[in-house]
Amino acid sequence: MRKLRVAAAQMGPVAKDESRAEVVQRLLKMMRGAAEMGVDLVCYPELALTTFFPRWCIDSKDEFDLYFERELPGPETRPLFDEAARLKIGFYLGYAELDVSSGEKKRFNTTVIVDKAGRIVGKYRKVHLPGHKDLSTVGGTAKSGHVVNNFERRYFELGDLGFPVWRAMGANLGMCICNDRRWPETFRAMGLRDVEVVMCGYNTSAVSARRIGNRETLLPSHIGMFHNHLSMQAGAYQNSTWVVGIAKCGREEGHDLMGGSCIISPQGEIVALAHTLEDEVIVADCDLDECEIGKGGMFNFDRYRRIEHYRIITEQTGRTSPPAAG
Amino acid sequence: MRKLRVAAAQMGPVAKDESRAEVVQRLLKMMRGAAEMGVDLVCYPELALTTFFPRWCIDSKDEFDLYFERELPGPETRPLFDEAARLKIGFYLGYAELDVSSGEKKRFNTTVIVDKAGRIVGKYRKVHLPGHKDLSTVGGTAKSGHVVNNFERRYFELGDLGFPVWRAMGANLGMCICNDRRWPETFRAMGLRDVEVVMCGYNTSAVSARRIGNRETLLPSHIGMFHNHLSMQAGAYQNSTWVVGIAKCGREEGHDLMGGSCIISPQGEIVALAHTLEDEVIVADCDLDECEIGKGGMFNFDRYRRIEHYRIITEQTGRTSPPAAG
Repeated sequence: MRKLRVAAAQMGPVAKDESRAEVVQRLLKMMRGAAEMGVDLVCYPELALTTFFPRWCIDSKDEFDLYFERELPGPETRPLFDEAARLKIGFYLGYAELDVSSGEKKRFNTTVIVDKAGRIVGKYRKVHLPGHKDLSTVGGTAKSGHVVNNFERRYFELGDLGFPVWRAMGANLGMCICNDRRWPETFRAMGLRDVEVVMCGYNTSAVSARRIGNRETLLPSHIGMFHNHLSMQAGAYQNSTWVVGIAKCGREEGHDLMGGSCIISPQGEIVALAHTLEDEVIVADCDLDECEIGKGGMFNFDRYRRIEHYRIITEQTGRTSPPAAG
Repeated sequence: MRKLRVAAAQMGPVAKDESRAEVVQRLLKMMRGAAEMGVDLVCYPELALTTFFPRWCIDSKDEFDLYFERELPGPETRPLFDEAARLKIGFYLGYAELDVSSGEKKRFNTTVIVDKAGRIVGKYRKVHLPGHKDLSTVGGTAKSGHVVNNFERRYFELGDLGFPVWRAMGANLGMCICNDRRWPETFRAMGLRDVEVVMCGYNTSAVSARRIGNRETLLPSHIGMFHNHLSMQAGAYQNSTWVVGIAKCGREEGHDLMGGSCIISPQGEIVALAHTLEDEVIVADCDLDECEIGKGGMFNFDRYRRIEHYRIITEQTGRTSPPAAG
């Protein structure tokens, strides 16, 4: 049995005026709690260091640079790295990345894996960016206030690092962020790289509303949580991997975010579940050898996958219409 | 609202000595029941016309030719086609196909869509064939009798028609069979062809057992049904399509097959569920316009899919090992 003890460190809301230092203290408190339980790897949400600022659409993106990290670790985040090294605990953290290495500002919705020595061993940039660039594409539902707006496409570039998997802390580790979890390609791309633990932080509205044509369709309020779990459970089962989902949740600046942080076994079952909308640590012992039940059996990719019939998946982005039968 | 009234016609067990004529009478009875409810399309299980013969491994495949159809409709199955045309009801049917058109015997695990005029408008051959070619690859679990053996790879060729979608009966219709449903590529290949209803017949063991290395792991008995529904619900949600799952179930020749036939909405919710292990018809009104909630929003493929990061899905069949981090 190759065991990795994993914690999901769910976060309650982060206020707009909450300082980075205050947030880091909250993260440190959960890290210490996890370390006391012998946790190897503690996982934080998407954009964990600030409020979920992409809910607002402002004229100048630069105004929001205060929400971005120019370096990681930086002065305000270094205590996390130092404490991780001291406690010998790894972590996964989401943050807004401002990359000026090319001479111009590039912004990404990013997560990193930090090992037990406090070193960054992997970086991921969100591939499936939801939301809008500006108000022109916002539909009636959002305008009427039922949906929390999302302007991630205004602030972030599309992730450019793909879906790598790293061997670290004795496990094959992969990352994705929020909306990525709804796309089976996310999990499959990592499954093909033999991932054993996928970490996915999220900030997801607790309100469900969709437009259908000109009709406004308010879906039942439970549907968002159902989709959250369904996507991650299917990704876990179909790729025989542990999945850790970590929410930032609760009422944040007047907007309700869902909780439901969870740890999911390679059989797709939720084995640990957060039950509050606050800072809350849940833990599970992940037996990495359990991945082989699927990887060596039902989901022996080499034996069963038929890539000659999958070509449309990478040859075509959007949908096409089928021919009339007969 | 574009409405298609769909029925799943679950079947209880079919005995080895049950004649094709007897089985067809059972199918006709359910077809008439569905027609009385105004159903447009009635869906039958995988290999609906006979017992699930691939559970047995026999020396000469030809011995089992009696389980195969040389033509469809043939003398014994024509009443189904005639009655469908008379009642103006479409159907989906699974059968073992013996294709001698090339001069040699080719066998497939096949399903067809038949329209309201009794004409075959689409044919699908199972792509993801589970099981074994012979006893040499059967593991300890199966040998010890916990698992119903599956020798589909002995009797059938791999499906060679891909995952087409047809426009028929006013809907975009697609098919898959049993084990296909566990592979997200199955649903995605049809989702990219704008499918609105996926039909999936199955014969699935109600017993769950897996080997892990040399250890025999008996998973909890509910896990098989959980995986059955999880796979189809995720496929429905992630591709914004209705899904119809149709079981052959109950104790068949001493082997327990799961039921759980269901109709799943494009939001991934089970909206109709069979609750017996017998012949049972369940019905749902499928509003095809509801597919647009996802197709035009959260799962607007053209807007959100990032095929440049999916390449591994079609370039690589099996898994590869990740590099060591740091």
